[in-house]
Amino acid sequence: MENTLSNVMTNVEFSAVYNMLSLGIASMLFTSIFLWIARDRVLPKYRLAVMVSATVTSIAAYHYFRMFDSFNAAYGKGGATDTLTAFLQYNVGYRYVDWFLTVPLLLVELVAVLGLAKAVQSSLLKRLVPAAALMIVLGYPGDTKTHLFGLGNDMWGLLSTIPFLYIMYVLWVELSKSLASQSDKVRGIFTGLRLLLIATWGVYPITFILAMNSTTAPTGAEVLAREVGYSIADILAKCLFGLIIFSIARIKSAEDDKAFASSEGH
Amino acid sequence: MENTLSNVMTNVEFSAVYNMLSLGIASMLFTSIFLWIARDRVLPKYRLAVMVSATVTSIAAYHYFRMFDSFNAAYGKGGATDTLTAFLQYNVGYRYVDWFLTVPLLLVELVAVLGLAKAVQSSLLKRLVPAAALMIVLGYPGDTKTHLFGLGNDMWGLLSTIPFLYIMYVLWVELSKSLASQSDKVRGIFTGLRLLLIATWGVYPITFILAMNSTTAPTGAEVLAREVGYSIADILAKCLFGLIIFSIARIKSAEDDKAFASSEGH
Repeated sequence: MENTLSNVMTNVEFSAVYNMLSLGIASMLFTSIFLWIARDRVLPKYRLAVMVSATVTSIAAYHYFRMFDSFNAAYGKGGATDTLTAFLQYNVGYRYVDWFLTVPLLLVELVAVLGLAKAVQSSLLKRLVPAAALMIVLGYPGDTKTHLFGLGNDMWGLLSTIPFLYIMYVLWVELSKSLASQSDKVRGIFTGLRLLLIATWGVYPITFILAMNSTTAPTGAEVLAREVGYSIADILAKCLFGLIIFSIARIKSAEDDKAFASSEGH
Repeated sequence: MENTLSNVMTNVEFSAVYNMLSLGIASMLFTSIFLWIARDRVLPKYRLAVMVSATVTSIAAYHYFRMFDSFNAAYGKGGATDTLTAFLQYNVGYRYVDWFLTVPLLLVELVAVLGLAKAVQSSLLKRLVPAAALMIVLGYPGDTKTHLFGLGNDMWGLLSTIPFLYIMYVLWVELSKSLASQSDKVRGIFTGLRLLLIATWGVYPITFILAMNSTTAPTGAEVLAREVGYSIADILAKCLFGLIIFSIARIKSAEDDKAFASSEGH
């Protein structure tokens, strides 16, 4: 035991999660700073989208700091000596609180950057934001394996799929009507952005289903798979997503205002 | 005992309070950053309201960091081994110091965003601010169950109701005269905002009355109900409230200045 970093994970497993969570902190924190400062490089009408993107990565930076500390306390050298205790001590709630705040905001970014008429934007957000919050809330009891109200993980997973499908419907059917007014360039990037969102969201149910059958505490390899999967998905869905939102806002600023375009903005 | 997170609460109760307080930190902190940065997106005459909103959520962010640590120290694994010690160690004073500072400031936001004549604004605030501070000061001895000056919790609760009713009178009777000069849109949102304030304030007396009969230390379930109730009320009354103040300030900026409206602000 002299040369181990953790009582319940191998050195390779422990280091991989440890470094992945640290990568999460660095990605979220510095994307935030970049976006906060870059916000005035787009026209005022697109600034909200960039500010909300910066808010999302800021919220995630806070939670990655907390998760990093929580993971070390639970799985690190001085932490738990069995996998069940480590699993209980590592607070998975941070991820859900993070998603509860950030997933609705990601949809706000996505809609705000299109610069639609106020009424259309408001109508889309009134449906997307509550559905996103509901999707996360319903997913939590499943992931913690709490048999809340007598329902098993699988039932909570299924219930959470209903708002998910509704969001898909709004993004692909309702929102598509609004895309007609966008330039080809913007429409192309936007379609890619919408796919990125779905692809990264896909990691969550896959991880969820993989972990569903284990009735006891997850092994080191399972913790590794879950944490690395969630972290990569988070970095793509928040940092890469936010930077693409910023580049759409730059393109649309140049399209709307020739003077802005020729001066290359601020 | 190996697999418990707390000596005096169940794992579900402990995790729920822990994550709710962390949600409080994240909500307050990032609403603050958003509002501080967004302040120049409204006309100078409405900027004070936005800056005071940012101050309120910043003060609350500080107190949520403190409460999170205080809760962990008292109710967490290494903390108290009986409910009375835990109750005494967890410093409820943070909430009251927070409210003592933030509740008067919430009323400042509410009045400042209307952009009233200086004399009217000053007259309203000279009555609302001291009444709000008094309401919080009188509520504290009741909540801590200190029988200060020989008065029981119920008496302190009753005394605290007097400034509360006075605030209601000023907001619904006095302030309503000033609403006539506002546009329909602003008046509609403002009416909703005033109701939000009252609805969230309603959580405090309800929690207070529910806890009034317990003469001993609160159980885990009671701590859970109190902390979750107060935290949700705080997030709505400070973050949601502050963001609505910001959106009223945006609308009024656009109404006052057509150039501001056409450029979509700064």
